[in-house]
Amino acid sequence: MTITITAFEHSPDRGIGLARDMRIRWALEEVGQSYAVRLVSFEAMKAPAHLALRPFGQIPTYEDGDLALFESGAIVLHIAQHHAGLLPAEPGARARAITWMFAALNTVEPPIVERSMAIVTESDRPWFAARQPILDARVRDRLSQLSARLGTSDWLDGPFSAADLLMVTVLRRVNNPTLLGEYPNIAAYIARGEARPAYQRAFADQLAVFTCIPAC
Amino acid sequence: MTITITAFEHSPDRGIGLARDMRIRWALEEVGQSYAVRLVSFEAMKAPAHLALRPFGQIPTYEDGDLALFESGAIVLHIAQHHAGLLPAEPGARARAITWMFAALNTVEPPIVERSMAIVTESDRPWFAARQPILDARVRDRLSQLSARLGTSDWLDGPFSAADLLMVTVLRRVNNPTLLGEYPNIAAYIARGEARPAYQRAFADQLAVFTCIPAC
Repeated sequence: MTITITAFEHSPDRGIGLARDMRIRWALEEVGQSYAVRLVSFEAMKAPAHLALRPFGQIPTYEDGDLALFESGAIVLHIAQHHAGLLPAEPGARARAITWMFAALNTVEPPIVERSMAIVTESDRPWFAARQPILDARVRDRLSQLSARLGTSDWLDGPFSAADLLMVTVLRRVNNPTLLGEYPNIAAYIARGEARPAYQRAFADQLAVFTCIPAC
Repeated sequence: MTITITAFEHSPDRGIGLARDMRIRWALEEVGQSYAVRLVSFEAMKAPAHLALRPFGQIPTYEDGDLALFESGAIVLHIAQHHAGLLPAEPGARARAITWMFAALNTVEPPIVERSMAIVTESDRPWFAARQPILDARVRDRLSQLSARLGTSDWLDGPFSAADLLMVTVLRRVNNPTLLGEYPNIAAYIARGEARPAYQRAFADQLAVFTCIPAC
C-alpha cells in the first residue's frame, strides 16, 4: 500500500517550504515511511474530485488504501499515532505533546498567517501600513510567550515530537529574520528543527518540485 | 480524582457560551463526567501560576491528578479518547473524525475569529468599514464549502462526534444571524447541536457563572 499525499503544482512560496505539504513530508521522513506525491494545480484544487477529498480545497491530503484524510495537523497526528518516534509512549507526556500540536496550529499560527496574508492580499490597500504594527504586535505576543516557555530547552516538552515538527513549520511562516531575531531562543529552535536529517530530505523533495518546473 | 477546568471569571461574551470553556463543559457532559471549575480573572490569567499551566494565558485549562493540559481542541480530544461516545471506534472513521476536529479549529475558525476580533478591536479605526466586506467574504468562503459538504446530513461524518461538538462551537462564534441565515443547513446543524441535552446542561452552567456575578 502506497501513501499518497498532495502538494501544490506551483507553490506560491517558490520552494522555501512554507506550504503545508512540508509538514507531512517531514513527518513521513521522521518515521521512515515512503510516499508518493500527486501535484495539484490551483484549478484542480477547486474541482469536485479534489473537493471530495478535501472540502475546503487546498493541499495537503493523505490517502492510504481506503483511508483519505485532510488537514495537516490531523495527518501528522495520524502518522505519529501509527509509527514510533513522533509522540512519547507515556500517556501523560503523549497528551501534553498533542496539546502542543494544537497550540502550534490554533494559538501560534493564526496571528502569523493573518500577518502574512495581509502582506499578500492587502499591501495595496490604504490601511496596510497603519495595520502592519498591529499585526506585528499580535505575532510578538505569541512569540514572547513561546520564548518565555521554551527558555533554554531544545524542544517544547522533552524529546523532539510531532509538536516540535508542527511548531517549527508554523514559526517558519513568520518568514521575517528581523522579527524572529528578537527571540534568539526561537531562532535557534527553528534552526534545530531544520538541521534534522528528516527535515532536510523533506525540504529537498519539496524544493525539487518547484525548481524542476517547467523542465520536468 | 476530580477534573478541574478553568473559565473566565467575567466572560467577555456575557454568558452566550462563546468562550472556549464551553467546549470542555459540553464534552464532559456528553460523556457523563463531573468536573470542578476554577474561575480566573484577566489579571490572574497573566500571572505566573496560570502561565505555568497555559503558557499563552487565557482559558480553558484541564487538570486531572498529575496531568495538566491546555488548548480546547487538545482537551476535547483527550476526553474523547478516554471515554466512549465522542469518537467512532472503527479506526478509519475515528481518523476522519479527528480530521474534522482539526478542520473546525484550523480551517473554519480562523476567519471567523479574525472577523469577530476586528469588530472588537478595530471598529473605531478608519479602515473598519472598508475591511468588513473582505472579512465577511472569507467567512462566507468557509461556510459555503462547509454547507456544500454537509448537504442534508445531520452531522459531519456519521454519528455525532467530537468533531461536531467543536464545529458547532466554532460556528456559533459567527454570532450573526444574517450571515448564518444564508446557509440554512448550517443554521439547522448548529440548532441540532444546541438541542442536545449535554449542550443544554453545559450552557446553563456557564451562564450561571455570568448571571450570578457579583451576587454569589
